[in-house]
Amino acid sequence: MTTDLKLYQSNGSPNSRRVRIFVAEKGIELPQVPVDLGAKEQFSEAYVAINPRRVVPTLVLEDGPAIGEVPAIMRYLDEAFPETPLLGSSPQEKALIQMWERRMELEGFAAVMETVRNRAAGLKDRAIAGPHDYAQIPALVDRGMERVKDFYADLEARLAEAAFVAGPALSAADITAFVTIAFATGALQLGIPEANTATRRWHDGLAARASFSA
Amino acid sequence: MTTDLKLYQSNGSPNSRRVRIFVAEKGIELPQVPVDLGAKEQFSEAYVAINPRRVVPTLVLEDGPAIGEVPAIMRYLDEAFPETPLLGSSPQEKALIQMWERRMELEGFAAVMETVRNRAAGLKDRAIAGPHDYAQIPALVDRGMERVKDFYADLEARLAEAAFVAGPALSAADITAFVTIAFATGALQLGIPEANTATRRWHDGLAARASFSA
Repeated sequence: MTTDLKLYQSNGSPNSRRVRIFVAEKGIELPQVPVDLGAKEQFSEAYVAINPRRVVPTLVLEDGPAIGEVPAIMRYLDEAFPETPLLGSSPQEKALIQMWERRMELEGFAAVMETVRNRAAGLKDRAIAGPHDYAQIPALVDRGMERVKDFYADLEARLAEAAFVAGPALSAADITAFVTIAFATGALQLGIPEANTATRRWHDGLAARASFSA
Repeated sequence: MTTDLKLYQSNGSPNSRRVRIFVAEKGIELPQVPVDLGAKEQFSEAYVAINPRRVVPTLVLEDGPAIGEVPAIMRYLDEAFPETPLLGSSPQEKALIQMWERRMELEGFAAVMETVRNRAAGLKDRAIAGPHDYAQIPALVDRGMERVKDFYADLEARLAEAAFVAGPALSAADITAFVTIAFATGALQLGIPEANTATRRWHDGLAARASFSA
């Protein structure tokens, strides 16, 4: 399936990867426009006009409007291309998947991001992405590591009782959890604990899908 | 419209209020079950069985499943009762409203909450709501006040160009922004700055609606 949409994204950005995997799972062909974060292209006038929050990814629709924020981009794609839904079909499924995807993001992904941004030497006054500068707070690094460990424990408990994060079927919640683990492993050297067998089994299953290499 | 749903909520909880206003705007009659946060009822075995995150509100469906997380509860209600949509109708509307509601929450509501939880004497080891204890970080109080001021500035810029937060029509994004302002005013004595005339005009219009007293 091809579209006239454009995805502004960066290969090194974990938030961009959430959308790339989502798109690959749905089988949508979505033209990508690279945004060079190393060259600070997200702060350029052209990009800020598309996304005033100065973050990637952004989905630009054929008729103009730009959609920022990963869950909102996923929402557009799942509503506009309802085949292979990754955010559910019934009201109940949609709500439960949104609940789980959000927990994976706020308890997992955001905890990794907070740790990384409060620690990286190059982000001294950029502890929160966006239009405003905030100084790093060193205490958030230790707390962030604790939060990621708690995330792994909670995820293990969940996957011991359900095949996928949001229940019996693969959904956007799995994508966010999977990217969170890759991010924590790469940036914080916090991989899945050895003893977390339910998480490992689930992770191996996802890693075997071609779409999860997107 | 009556339902067999039940909303577990607390009158003093700003997150509960987001759902109460949402429900009132849609004209749904939703039986409420009070959760006494003062008596720490959210930590009781009975409530944790409904919401393992130990937070209010939770929406319990007729056939059993419980939906936590405010945006997920709103999603269920808007999908199950599509009259008077507050999260949009078309894919584009749904995505743009989700984007704006999320920005209001992450940049506004969450900043107020973080400030309050890192400052309240009674929440020493409860800086983040949920199943895990995290110690307060005093530096987050000052940063939180800054973030709320930045939120007010960004909201003013938005409301100078649009009638409502997400565009031409009232949506869930307005509800979250409105409750954020009440929360910041009450808990942090940070009301809408005098000079923010677009925000004041928008706020007066919402405050005049009966549903916004819910």
